[in-house]
Amino acid sequence: METIIKSIYENYKNSVGIGKVADYIPPLAKVSHEKYAISVCTVEGERFNVGDWQEKFSIQSISKVFTLSLLAPLVGPELWECVGKEPSGSPFNSLVQLEYEKGIPRNPFINAGALVVTDKLLEKIPNLDDVLLDYVRGLSGSQDIHFCRDVAASEYATGERNKALAHLMKSFGNFKGKVSTVFRAYCNQCSIEMSTSQLAQAFIFLANKGVNPLNGEQVVSCRDAKRINSLMLTCGFYDESGDFAYRVGLPGKSGVGGGIVAVIPGKLSIAVWSPELNRYGNSCRGISTLADFTTELGISVF
Amino acid sequence: METIIKSIYENYKNSVGIGKVADYIPPLAKVSHEKYAISVCTVEGERFNVGDWQEKFSIQSISKVFTLSLLAPLVGPELWECVGKEPSGSPFNSLVQLEYEKGIPRNPFINAGALVVTDKLLEKIPNLDDVLLDYVRGLSGSQDIHFCRDVAASEYATGERNKALAHLMKSFGNFKGKVSTVFRAYCNQCSIEMSTSQLAQAFIFLANKGVNPLNGEQVVSCRDAKRINSLMLTCGFYDESGDFAYRVGLPGKSGVGGGIVAVIPGKLSIAVWSPELNRYGNSCRGISTLADFTTELGISVF
Amino acid sequence: METIIKSIYENYKNSVGIGKVADYIPPLAKVSHEKYAISVCTVEGERFNVGDWQEKFSIQSISKVFTLSLLAPLVGPELWECVGKEPSGSPFNSLVQLEYEKGIPRNPFINAGALVVTDKLLEKIPNLDDVLLDYVRGLSGSQDIHFCRDVAASEYATGERNKALAHLMKSFGNFKGKVSTVFRAYCNQCSIEMSTSQLAQAFIFLANKGVNPLNGEQVVSCRDAKRINSLMLTCGFYDESGDFAYRVGLPGKSGVGGGIVAVIPGKLSIAVWSPELNRYGNSCRGISTLADFTTELGISVF
Amino acid sequence: METIIKSIYENYKNSVGIGKVADYIPPLAKVSHEKYAISVCTVEGERFNVGDWQEKFSIQSISKVFTLSLLAPLVGPELWECVGKEPSGSPFNSLVQLEYEKGIPRNPFINAGALVVTDKLLEKIPNLDDVLLDYVRGLSGSQDIHFCRDVAASEYATGERNKALAHLMKSFGNFKGKVSTVFRAYCNQCSIEMSTSQLAQAFIFLANKGVNPLNGEQVVSCRDAKRINSLMLTCGFYDESGDFAYRVGLPGKSGVGGGIVAVIPGKLSIAVWSPELNRYGNSCRGISTLADFTTELGISVF
Repeated sequence: METIIKSIYENYKNSVGIGKVADYIPPLAKVSHEKYAISVCTVEGERFNVGDWQEKFSIQSISKVFTLSLLAPLVGPELWECVGKEPSGSPFNSLVQLEYEKGIPRNPFINAGALVVTDKLLEKIPNLDDVLLDYVRGLSGSQDIHFCRDVAASEYATGERNKALAHLMKSFGNFKGKVSTVFRAYCNQCSIEMSTSQLAQAFIFLANKGVNPLNGEQVVSCRDAKRINSLMLTCGFYDESGDFAYRVGLPGKSGVGGGIVAVIPGKLSIAVWSPELNRYGNSCRGISTLADFTTELGISVF
Repeated sequence: METIIKSIYENYKNSVGIGKVADYIPPLAKVSHEKYAISVCTVEGERFNVGDWQEKFSIQSISKVFTLSLLAPLVGPELWECVGKEPSGSPFNSLVQLEYEKGIPRNPFINAGALVVTDKLLEKIPNLDDVLLDYVRGLSGSQDIHFCRDVAASEYATGERNKALAHLMKSFGNFKGKVSTVFRAYCNQCSIEMSTSQLAQAFIFLANKGVNPLNGEQVVSCRDAKRINSLMLTCGFYDESGDFAYRVGLPGKSGVGGGIVAVIPGKLSIAVWSPELNRYGNSCRGISTLADFTTELGISVF
Repeated sequence: METIIKSIYENYKNSVGIGKVADYIPPLAKVSHEKYAISVCTVEGERFNVGDWQEKFSIQSISKVFTLSLLAPLVGPELWECVGKEPSGSPFNSLVQLEYEKGIPRNPFINAGALVVTDKLLEKIPNLDDVLLDYVRGLSGSQDIHFCRDVAASEYATGERNKALAHLMKSFGNFKGKVSTVFRAYCNQCSIEMSTSQLAQAFIFLANKGVNPLNGEQVVSCRDAKRINSLMLTCGFYDESGDFAYRVGLPGKSGVGGGIVAVIPGKLSIAVWSPELNRYGNSCRGISTLADFTTELGISVF
Repeated sequence: METIIKSIYENYKNSVGIGKVADYIPPLAKVSHEKYAISVCTVEGERFNVGDWQEKFSIQSISKVFTLSLLAPLVGPELWECVGKEPSGSPFNSLVQLEYEKGIPRNPFINAGALVVTDKLLEKIPNLDDVLLDYVRGLSGSQDIHFCRDVAASEYATGERNKALAHLMKSFGNFKGKVSTVFRAYCNQCSIEMSTSQLAQAFIFLANKGVNPLNGEQVVSCRDAKRINSLMLTCGFYDESGDFAYRVGLPGKSGVGGGIVAVIPGKLSIAVWSPELNRYGNSCRGISTLADFTTELGISVF
């Protein structure tokens, strides 16, 4: 394993200049495009790291997996009456889709879906910010995880389309809280900063039937772990989910901060960070890294 | 004239129970469905009234004509870069249309368009609420015109779709102010209460080449008066504008409070109030009244 | 009248190079962009012509008024269950609108609406091509009116979007005939060639309460004449109908061949031809001509 | 294996009356809702069958896998310029999606995508009907496979929406052939009748790195086999693909005739037939059968 990730790292170390660092908010645009890190965590507790694996970055949409995991045990199957389980087609027409489908987002990993998840969380957990941080710290076994207030504020200030989605869902009755409150919590989630090492550890429960191996806690039911993995495979990479399924063949989730986490159920979790994004908003080098990783391991669903 | 409107009034006096009083906010639902009033005002200053013409009601979307008239002289032709001049097709898909057309609403009489107008007004006139009330009082020659705080608050509380429209336009850069501030001003406008007598008087400038005959002031340019009349003819009645053009053949504007105002350029303005609405949100008896009025006068564009 | 149209003609005679001749099919692209003609016909039978008024051109969408007029007396009010009477908003999303509104086109002057009208005509009149030519010849008092087979064939060959509209309406049950048969008839209609002189004469019944003054025949009922005029005012100029209503203020219909016909109910009809089109597909010089014409006559609805 | 499928068969043998047999065309509506068959085929050549496994049924959309497999080696990567590789979101708005995305269907398993595949096939193979039948016969090792002319004719007669899709793509230049010719070929494909035994055998190449084990032929490249499997996992079950991925976790394809085929790469293929469909158009008992099958085998991606 050590050899594999080191060899991949060496291979791509100089592959920069092919994508574009996210620049829709200033704090993200400042990140060096050369950053590159790979971390692997196995269900047996082994850990492998290479590159900038100690450096923290904005996890952005990867946080949608944490909020869904936090919510799932609290609500049960009626969750799926408020948010769908199917791929969304293209993101650009999410407002059109919401209008057609009467305010029910297609899945929890598009923005509208994550807003509904956050709305539901706030109904159950008024001090969501603190609880979520504790939750992620517990999963990753590290207290050194925080929101980036600067990123959160920028996201909030520029998030007009997300606010439009929230108000539209509210007009359909599929959104209970105050839009500004829910959206602020959502922006905080996106602003969480973690290293690949912390992320790989934090996702291992999804490779371990829902159990956090650090403390033996059942984070989500085995059934929910399977459901979340399934959703990550079909919906985890925006409008490139189908291609990711083909090239990598693993459940995973990406964020515009350049992070990607994937899991091999029963075996391991892997986190990669490289800020240059392709036109779908996924890390270029991150996807190549994972594609080579599954090829090297000789595992693929297909 | 007296004879004509009295005869129409008698004819329809008992025509109730065919439509439905607006009930999307409680204060509107409380209005008696039997109310009926007709007021005519000529450019020469004659005034004719029948029925409940002294009673005030919520003018709702009729206020969109006041805000457009207030804005037009302040901005000039560049107004039409922010809002279109064409009929909108159906209102139900306004979000879809806004998405397609990159945040530019089709015309100033759909909600999205009126929100843009209000946004632009607030840029020029910070104390818009006061200025607008004074403006309408000046047009109608009556100081006794006020906002209904109850109606405005209800509109604000339930206006999720309007807020979604505003945020979507903001995401396209076609909306400058704070959504809550602009929308609050918009709700105040809709909540203005006037009688048919006040409304007929307040619209007479559009029949008089833009000049308020009460004080000789040029409210809008002759050109703008023509433009506003043209917009009222093609877009003044939601998704029933084409049918209204056919049945009545006059520029006009309706509101869900059951009011309708129309003008015969060069001659007169007429306001009708009857709260029962048809399925397009226009006053049933109001449209019949105006159709008979133009038939009786023997004037029709077509 | 003679003086007015001559003066307008002189004024615009050299105004070329500002628009673009239709080129989506080769036969239309070949027309000289310098052509310019104006013809007026009064209800009393006077006729005034200037420029290339004897030359025939492709009437294209102007034919939609003829087919609607031919159909109206045959079906009665149930016509409006198959096709709407309201402006369509933008043409570009007609498929989206048809999908939303379950196969009912917004009005008879958009392509989908004209296809439904032709479908209904063919149900009643199997030999529609011949009957329609006779009908138009009767209205214009001239036997020398024909289809252009070359134009019709080109329209048919390139009309994929129109065929898609027809099949979509058929899937909703709002289209009875064979798509190829109906669309061929539709293309023939568009290919009719007429001069401005013939067109002005052929439209005079709409200014004359539905009566053809040449033979005293009631072509359409007075009510239907009014309805058709109303539709032309709100929907006759594609996505520029609102602006045309403002600038010209008359019911009218344009075609991409560069022709425009308008009527002043009770008075006259006027046809203009100039092939250069603006970005909405309406004749640039045609609209300016009509705007000046109404200004000169001092008639405007607004 | 024998034991597993027999036990599942016994378990569901009487589970009828929960779904609805397809009835949009008469020939499908006549099929008995009680039919139930399971066939398994391993890469080593073992075969297991239970129930009505010798009876043939209409494979419908399962044929989309055959046409894609036939086309893939003929065109190479440029295939993906004409048709996407991503899940489509909901099927009901395919026209809207095609309009948005300029005539490029989201994937080859929605109707628009399969029509493009057929169009491309006909460019290369004029006698496609014969070639396709031979191809499927070769894959299944059985000469007794035919079109059902009755089903094909019904599909053709009622396929207005599919024709609309084809014409719309043609208007965007993404469709070369004659719509009627291509759609007739498409209807023939859907009308192919096969038994579960034949189907399981015909799909085994996708579990075998693209090689037909019956004759050692490389049907598609190993890479293309992986791509097709990936597409089946994310897009094979209409608007229930995400849920199927979760419950079954295998690449597969369903048809409204009640058939489902799935593959376990490297191991086996399995075909199930049971005509009662759920609201997404997938066989109720087919999905339950496959869910139990993967649970019994203890294999799941997630």
